[in-house]
Amino acid sequence: MKIEIINTGSELLLGSTPNTHGTWIGQELMKLGLRVQRQVTVPDGIAIEEALAESVSRSDVVLITGGLGPTSDDITREAAAKVLDVELIRDEAALRSLKEFFAAREIPMADTNLKQADVLVGADVLPNPNGTAPGIYAPPRLGCALFLLPGPPRELYPMFHAEVVPRLKALAGVDEIAEVQELKFIGVGESELHEGIDEPLSRIEGLEVGYCARLGEVDLRLIGTPEVIAKGRELALASYADYFVNDDGSSLEETVVKLLAEKGLVLTTAESCTGGLISNRITDISGSSEVFEYGFVTYSNEAKADLIGVKAETLEEFGAVSEEIAGEMAVGALVESGADLAISVTGIAGPTGGTEEKPVGTVCFGIATEEGVETIRGIHPRNRKDFKQQVSQRALDLVRKKCLSDF
Amino acid sequence: MKIEIINTGSELLLGSTPNTHGTWIGQELMKLGLRVQRQVTVPDGIAIEEALAESVSRSDVVLITGGLGPTSDDITREAAAKVLDVELIRDEAALRSLKEFFAAREIPMADTNLKQADVLVGADVLPNPNGTAPGIYAPPRLGCALFLLPGPPRELYPMFHAEVVPRLKALAGVDEIAEVQELKFIGVGESELHEGIDEPLSRIEGLEVGYCARLGEVDLRLIGTPEVIAKGRELALASYADYFVNDDGSSLEETVVKLLAEKGLVLTTAESCTGGLISNRITDISGSSEVFEYGFVTYSNEAKADLIGVKAETLEEFGAVSEEIAGEMAVGALVESGADLAISVTGIAGPTGGTEEKPVGTVCFGIATEEGVETIRGIHPRNRKDFKQQVSQRALDLVRKKCLSDF
Repeated sequence: MKIEIINTGSELLLGSTPNTHGTWIGQELMKLGLRVQRQVTVPDGIAIEEALAESVSRSDVVLITGGLGPTSDDITREAAAKVLDVELIRDEAALRSLKEFFAAREIPMADTNLKQADVLVGADVLPNPNGTAPGIYAPPRLGCALFLLPGPPRELYPMFHAEVVPRLKALAGVDEIAEVQELKFIGVGESELHEGIDEPLSRIEGLEVGYCARLGEVDLRLIGTPEVIAKGRELALASYADYFVNDDGSSLEETVVKLLAEKGLVLTTAESCTGGLISNRITDISGSSEVFEYGFVTYSNEAKADLIGVKAETLEEFGAVSEEIAGEMAVGALVESGADLAISVTGIAGPTGGTEEKPVGTVCFGIATEEGVETIRGIHPRNRKDFKQQVSQRALDLVRKKCLSDF
Repeated sequence: MKIEIINTGSELLLGSTPNTHGTWIGQELMKLGLRVQRQVTVPDGIAIEEALAESVSRSDVVLITGGLGPTSDDITREAAAKVLDVELIRDEAALRSLKEFFAAREIPMADTNLKQADVLVGADVLPNPNGTAPGIYAPPRLGCALFLLPGPPRELYPMFHAEVVPRLKALAGVDEIAEVQELKFIGVGESELHEGIDEPLSRIEGLEVGYCARLGEVDLRLIGTPEVIAKGRELALASYADYFVNDDGSSLEETVVKLLAEKGLVLTTAESCTGGLISNRITDISGSSEVFEYGFVTYSNEAKADLIGVKAETLEEFGAVSEEIAGEMAVGALVESGADLAISVTGIAGPTGGTEEKPVGTVCFGIATEEGVETIRGIHPRNRKDFKQQVSQRALDLVRKKCLSDF
């Protein structure tokens, strides 16, 4: 079933309002196993009719939001009537509830509101308990079913659940409802993962596969019946289980906080180049106070020596960005805080400060427990913010792996 | 000049990723005085070609983002070649920088990456220092100029500024380009600002006014000739100079780091509820190591007592979220670090932990210098992440004002 969304509103195109409707409807349809084939944003006014004609001609279902208000540029109803070639009539029940809406608020109804009770002949009126404009559902005509929906989220969202979802289910039929699973991988690049599994995945009949790369992670999306998803998952994990983080759509920091809590572990952080980003991400998660108490942001050498006991000789001999210092930072933070697990990072975020031996992007990690400390050196040459993000991602993933290792 | 944006990516239609590109490009074009006529989102794959053909047929400029990656569903290049009816050739310079990108990261390049060096005959290659896929600019053909741009924001944004803006300006011609000035205000709400100045601003002929509210700040956008912009600016600052932060588009943290550096001051942070967000924002700015050395993330009471000398009696008497504790945190951080200026925050991010006396959203700030300490109590009931952002915004603004006070 081909579904399109049209969002109307000049403010969406000026960038002053993000288009949350498109995202929200996409998510809600995904929950039904349905997919949006195209989303179009047009300004208020005449462009609505043009966009609607195109969408109706190529889709099975079109959902259009906005343009049902009382003002002169609210012309979605009129545009739909023209495109579907049906008349508009004033609906008595809609008019009554419109009048009641104003009466309940003790404000007079303007004449311009009258047109909000106009509906397409043969269409269902979708009640709007939260606003003035009822929605309209025009059953398939010219091969396309059409939903006209109000723009304000507080009106749209309840109407969508109450009126749109049951009609979409009926239109789709049971067969089309697909399952979706998203597997999050960290530590493997998108192209490497793709090269490793795309060809065998493509041979699983009925499985649809998508990749979404974010900074320091790749999400693999599997769509199909539960059986083919299970096959796809098994295939992906056969080669990449070491990089697999979760399949419930939660963030890495959520996974880490949950894991720490499950194991009853307290984490501490010693951050140089990330400047507090790791502790910030940890504390974004509700409940993090159970697993996180002390964070050290030691941006200068003095702070490293003073707060977490990094030795002057080590700084002198190896420099602040070295595995030796990362190790001392982690151990020092562990001791100072009394935590079970310490992660440290020290690196060169750039754009300045790089050398031939230690170019911008060089970073060293330390991870310490009572049993000892491990260090790792890496390189992530990126702009400053992306470097910090990627380094924090890798640091959190080191914590995750350490937790899983049952040290 | 009719401009359309096409955003590609199945994740945008599934709702798993909000379409921030559409919003961002809309805003950037507004700054040039240009407007987007339509925005279309299509999934990866064959739909790209269909959408591109339609957009090219009705617009003067089309910007398409995404689908330049190495995987089999990245087909924007191929779609553009078909629609414009030109060949693709492998660009030697692009291939070289692609190979350098992988070499610098010490990772092998997959064969699938090779196609990322393919460009349209007659087009400009737009360098991408932040990723593997160069952009492509095809000058007007069939009446439409076409930009192919990478999807990841860290690649798109710099390329847009360096490569797209100058070309758009040339395409639009001088007449269409208006001047734009953005005044950033902090500490005043959007509706208050609007109510205070919108009516008088609307009486300045030829001045177009826009408001953009972000968490903890409002940007006032003035568009027109330099003369009318100057009038609008004067009018806005006559009433709201106290809240005015900058007019150069820089972030609050940039302004703060610049100001600290100018005054030769070193800042330290003592963060409870923000968990490192303040130090993270400071260290996002290149050069921050000159003005920031020590950051204390004291999430637990023990950490507050242990690292920055908060007194057990004060905790006992007033609780961790109190002006008294905020004051002790700021003074303790100042003393421990030897900085010139210390900012502290302690609050209840929620969703749990609120009481009748101190509901979720309660926050106390402390700001200390050699001369003494001031404390402030506020309330920002929001979801956890937004609370942290808004509190960090207010904390940074307190630092900014303190610097300006020449204490």
